[in-house]
Amino acid sequence: MKQYIEQNNERFLQELFSLLRIPSISSESAHRNDMYRCAERLVELLKEAGADRAAVYETTGHPVVFAEKKYDPAAPTILVYGHYDVMPVDPLSLWKSNPFEPEIRDGAIYARGANDDKGQTFMHIKAFEYLVREGKLRHNIKFIFEGEEEMGSAALSKWIKTHKRLLACDIILVSDTTMLNEKIPSINCGMRGITYMEVKVTGPKKDLHSGHYGGGVFNPINTLCKMIASLIDEDGHITVKGFYDDVVELSRKDRRMLGRAPYNAQEYMAGIGVKALTGEKGYTTLERVGIRPCLDVNGIWGGYTGEGSKTVIPSEAHAKISMRLVPNQDSKTIAKLFAKHFKAIAPKGVTVEVEEKHGGDGFLIPISSKAYQAASRAVGEVYGVEPVPSRGGGSIAILAEMQRALHADPLLMGFGLERDFIHSPNESYLLSQFYKGMESIALFYQYF
Amino acid sequence: MKQYIEQNNERFLQELFSLLRIPSISSESAHRNDMYRCAERLVELLKEAGADRAAVYETTGHPVVFAEKKYDPAAPTILVYGHYDVMPVDPLSLWKSNPFEPEIRDGAIYARGANDDKGQTFMHIKAFEYLVREGKLRHNIKFIFEGEEEMGSAALSKWIKTHKRLLACDIILVSDTTMLNEKIPSINCGMRGITYMEVKVTGPKKDLHSGHYGGGVFNPINTLCKMIASLIDEDGHITVKGFYDDVVELSRKDRRMLGRAPYNAQEYMAGIGVKALTGEKGYTTLERVGIRPCLDVNGIWGGYTGEGSKTVIPSEAHAKISMRLVPNQDSKTIAKLFAKHFKAIAPKGVTVEVEEKHGGDGFLIPISSKAYQAASRAVGEVYGVEPVPSRGGGSIAILAEMQRALHADPLLMGFGLERDFIHSPNESYLLSQFYKGMESIALFYQYF
Repeated sequence: MKQYIEQNNERFLQELFSLLRIPSISSESAHRNDMYRCAERLVELLKEAGADRAAVYETTGHPVVFAEKKYDPAAPTILVYGHYDVMPVDPLSLWKSNPFEPEIRDGAIYARGANDDKGQTFMHIKAFEYLVREGKLRHNIKFIFEGEEEMGSAALSKWIKTHKRLLACDIILVSDTTMLNEKIPSINCGMRGITYMEVKVTGPKKDLHSGHYGGGVFNPINTLCKMIASLIDEDGHITVKGFYDDVVELSRKDRRMLGRAPYNAQEYMAGIGVKALTGEKGYTTLERVGIRPCLDVNGIWGGYTGEGSKTVIPSEAHAKISMRLVPNQDSKTIAKLFAKHFKAIAPKGVTVEVEEKHGGDGFLIPISSKAYQAASRAVGEVYGVEPVPSRGGGSIAILAEMQRALHADPLLMGFGLERDFIHSPNESYLLSQFYKGMESIALFYQYF
Repeated sequence: MKQYIEQNNERFLQELFSLLRIPSISSESAHRNDMYRCAERLVELLKEAGADRAAVYETTGHPVVFAEKKYDPAAPTILVYGHYDVMPVDPLSLWKSNPFEPEIRDGAIYARGANDDKGQTFMHIKAFEYLVREGKLRHNIKFIFEGEEEMGSAALSKWIKTHKRLLACDIILVSDTTMLNEKIPSINCGMRGITYMEVKVTGPKKDLHSGHYGGGVFNPINTLCKMIASLIDEDGHITVKGFYDDVVELSRKDRRMLGRAPYNAQEYMAGIGVKALTGEKGYTTLERVGIRPCLDVNGIWGGYTGEGSKTVIPSEAHAKISMRLVPNQDSKTIAKLFAKHFKAIAPKGVTVEVEEKHGGDGFLIPISSKAYQAASRAVGEVYGVEPVPSRGGGSIAILAEMQRALHADPLLMGFGLERDFIHSPNESYLLSQFYKGMESIALFYQYF
């Protein structure tokens, strides 16, 4: 496919840029219309690439895009999953260029969604175009692109239940993850699940003057901080009662295999700019972020946060708290355990509300499977080195659900790099990864 | 003065409203011009009331207003202190009427500054007008109104150093505090000081995807929460090293005298809508908020705080933390101790910045003084019951400085009530307190 990419490079970039220019931020209701614009643009691109059919489907939330090209009923069917929604862009001031006006700098595309997941999804459309136009198609190919991955995939979760036949497939092919690095390619063989909660701690019914009441009442912020601090103990264990009940410990053999992934603590720390790491006692850093559950506060707010100072004891304090789960932990069960625990640890002087924002379970992919082996061979050929199996720490909540609903395993061929800083200001996607990704995908079809 | 108030009631209200309509929020730079408008309006009112001179004075920050009426060099000089700046109004959605369009409902004026401190300051201008117009003036009267009380009085603090002669006086008369309640009037005989800090905890150099790094790195929000939680121990003591070194324990006699203030835990809790109270072990609630120091988080923010969810480990987390101090604690010393302590408790995986926003010392006023006795007699006559001496928990940082610079004690005749909810949405000031306040002030001049 290398030659095809060279011949069509400029068009590929312009088409990708047309997607990146649409601010399809799923969590902000002001962008509702942009979700449709982006979905419709994907339909155009899929049709141009050679799909027999491609359309925008209404859901209970943001629309999904489905497309299909039939080859032979006897051939395997591959369902390509991707998402066209992106994360919010704040703080905007930290972006070096407009997040929705893509720019190429130092061999990388800079834009919100350049990698996650417009850039990675787009590679599949172009690999497909190549197979169709060059007469190399040997599979039935389907595409399902959703617009709510960054907010929990609630709409697609419902939609797949009523569209199982449409989505029927042998494997689910996904590029929405990261490789260890450019020289050591890796293929994800498992992902963590997630439970995302929002909590509100209310103390006095109105904001109080801290001079008049300070020292005598439960300050909701101090109280929330104390409650949060108590959620992780000195050994890095999560204290939510029952949290670890369903966690399956990996065998020594599995831990050794995953330990093959190269890791250098100094480089890891330098990459993110910290002087020390932390985490659960008894596990390595890669294990902590891959095969162990964790708890993070993703946002906190309360009281006066403007310039200057205000001497207030606020009525309320809020936090967004998420837990990454490992396979066999059930997201719904964890949400219930968390809510119960968080209410139980609240002192009598405050009231606590806990809301589940979204969740999804983790999953595993057998390394021995035909799909994993084909992907490994394809990636190995393009990169010149056999890829390492890795366990991704992120969550694509919907994949575990699709796996169950469609009885097909997901295969995670991700071409992102840590340096891409997805979800952060100045998200980027290396052009070399973009090109190698398309080549790897095209080769995968050849070996599968 | 009762009759004079009745005759001029409508004009008094309209004049006060003209002050309340000016959004003089000192901490928001957008209101810089409003500070001047408010200062100029005060100059007009002071001149109309009978001042020999009144003018706006430039400072290093927001302007101050000074006015004077000489009576007799041999008579005592009273310096009336007040402030025309107000607190921010957020969250605006909780206000029942426009904070800068005063409205009278159920016998109270509703507006930002209705009580704190435009309403209370205005009473002094009108009591002065009455004395002048009715030929009852027997003192030299000076006025100093500043525009930075709510943000720490930095400008006035410098200004008084170069204007000591102009401000020379025998006592500093202030109405910027609260009474126990309408039926049990009280006069403040001491106030707490304050040290207001802002902290920033920085972890990774950029926001990280919580799926990729969660469990392996110091999350700045979790870390900040843990650090904040550790600042107060299980007994309600502040753990900052050396914090209590200069705190003088009150004698049993003093504690008994202050304990005369009526207090009902059920009413207190119902008033602010909480089911339990907390605080330092070994002290009553009134002692905790009056004669003991405390630490409160006034604001906290970090990570994603918008709608929906974002799976981020933020680079930074912030908090505004203030400590109320008791007389003999030095605000600057406490700021240093706090900064040192907060940096010392930070784990190696984060960096911490600590900034002192503002501070001021507490002070005491002798109950045996001529000024306190005159105030007690005046208030007692108007309310029909002898006022209780109380220790206010709030801080008027600048008063301790003025006390030292001018060698004059402050006298705190406050007419606010807890129900006024100063610093909160729907700040109000009871008309009955407004009228009784003016009467009490006029009588004070008679007895002093």
